[in-house]
Amino acid sequence: MLKYEMIAQEINEYIEKEHYEAGDKLPNVEKFKEIYGVSKSTVIKALENLEKKGIIFQTRGSGIYVRNKKKDGYVNLFSASGFHDEIVGRQLTYEVKEVAEVTPSKHVQKQLKLEADEPIYKVERVIYVDNKTFCTELSYFNKSVVLYLNEGIAESSIFEYLEQHLKVKIGFSDIYFKVDKLTENEAPKLSLQAGEPCLRYEQLFYTTTGVPFDYSQLVYHYENALFYIPALK
Amino acid sequence: MLKYEMIAQEINEYIEKEHYEAGDKLPNVEKFKEIYGVSKSTVIKALENLEKKGIIFQTRGSGIYVRNKKKDGYVNLFSASGFHDEIVGRQLTYEVKEVAEVTPSKHVQKQLKLEADEPIYKVERVIYVDNKTFCTELSYFNKSVVLYLNEGIAESSIFEYLEQHLKVKIGFSDIYFKVDKLTENEAPKLSLQAGEPCLRYEQLFYTTTGVPFDYSQLVYHYENALFYIPALK
Repeated sequence: MLKYEMIAQEINEYIEKEHYEAGDKLPNVEKFKEIYGVSKSTVIKALENLEKKGIIFQTRGSGIYVRNKKKDGYVNLFSASGFHDEIVGRQLTYEVKEVAEVTPSKHVQKQLKLEADEPIYKVERVIYVDNKTFCTELSYFNKSVVLYLNEGIAESSIFEYLEQHLKVKIGFSDIYFKVDKLTENEAPKLSLQAGEPCLRYEQLFYTTTGVPFDYSQLVYHYENALFYIPALK
Repeated sequence: MLKYEMIAQEINEYIEKEHYEAGDKLPNVEKFKEIYGVSKSTVIKALENLEKKGIIFQTRGSGIYVRNKKKDGYVNLFSASGFHDEIVGRQLTYEVKEVAEVTPSKHVQKQLKLEADEPIYKVERVIYVDNKTFCTELSYFNKSVVLYLNEGIAESSIFEYLEQHLKVKIGFSDIYFKVDKLTENEAPKLSLQAGEPCLRYEQLFYTTTGVPFDYSQLVYHYENALFYIPALK
């Protein structure tokens, strides 16, 4: 963990311990510098980190404010990087339907910016939270970034594996979604009826150097999935 | 418009003009300093601004990358501040059902952090995009920030009015949502049937100094509303 990440964690704990609530003003940079005995630039980086996570909001010239705590059980879509970060304290289970090397369709090829018919990994899973169906997931991984995958790896968090073992640096992602009706084919996977509601969701992940490496299509269970976004103006 | 906002706009146009695509690396800060003849700190602020809007992604020590352009017709939930910013080039119509001064329920009182039984503004609208029902909206406004409202104002963008006339500085917001089935009461407002899908959505807006001033409950039409989030790791 880098120094600024440690300070970010300290400040987060400070917010908890001192019972700050949404809208409350925090001490300024100078004060945090004193409290933790670190440089101004470390405090600034730590605060940027907390701002990106939606924990604080900074106004130039006015101060630092605490934001609402994420409600329990809600998935933060803004900083989503796989569910293991989000579904804390609850049981997350991955049911692997398929892991295969395939040739991408034209659509997937375009998303992942593949040159020709390079093979990719296709992973199909059903994800459960506390034994309730949460979503179905169909993912395509660029093999130049995701060097290796198998069923055993897909039974846990793929992102944890990518970060810890393949040293992939996950940067940002684009999410597109809409509400829809479940098809005959999709409904049984979520233990629902065709025509019932769902969230139909597409996400394209990039590394920190702008390489798209994961294009996923998810279908969320309408009763079991709750979402949160810490938005800016 | 502030200087850094102008430079942000220039850089955005530069990205368009030079046909940069998602994942492409942009020139560095020094280069932009040269191109626009402004200070380093102005370029840095401009880039921060573009990063918050999901247009670029910056990696410490590695560079500045272009992100995917928002698809046409999708609402950016991360930087949502009323629909007039988002639904560009399409016809936005507000059908005002009610504007009233009411005493808040306990729930609304808690959201807006009101001390006692302070009266608030309640606004009920149906929003249309290109004459298609987009969503229903029920909003509660803190009167200490939203000093005045009436039907005429609610027939256009309330946020534009707040920013331009009441000089309200909108800071950040918390969004919570889930997919659900429409009730008997809701369905006709969206020209749908009870039991059909919808996105049920709550948003709490704060000023830049952390004062909650707008608590809104929206119900989106499942066929007409499309969403986008430029997410971070």
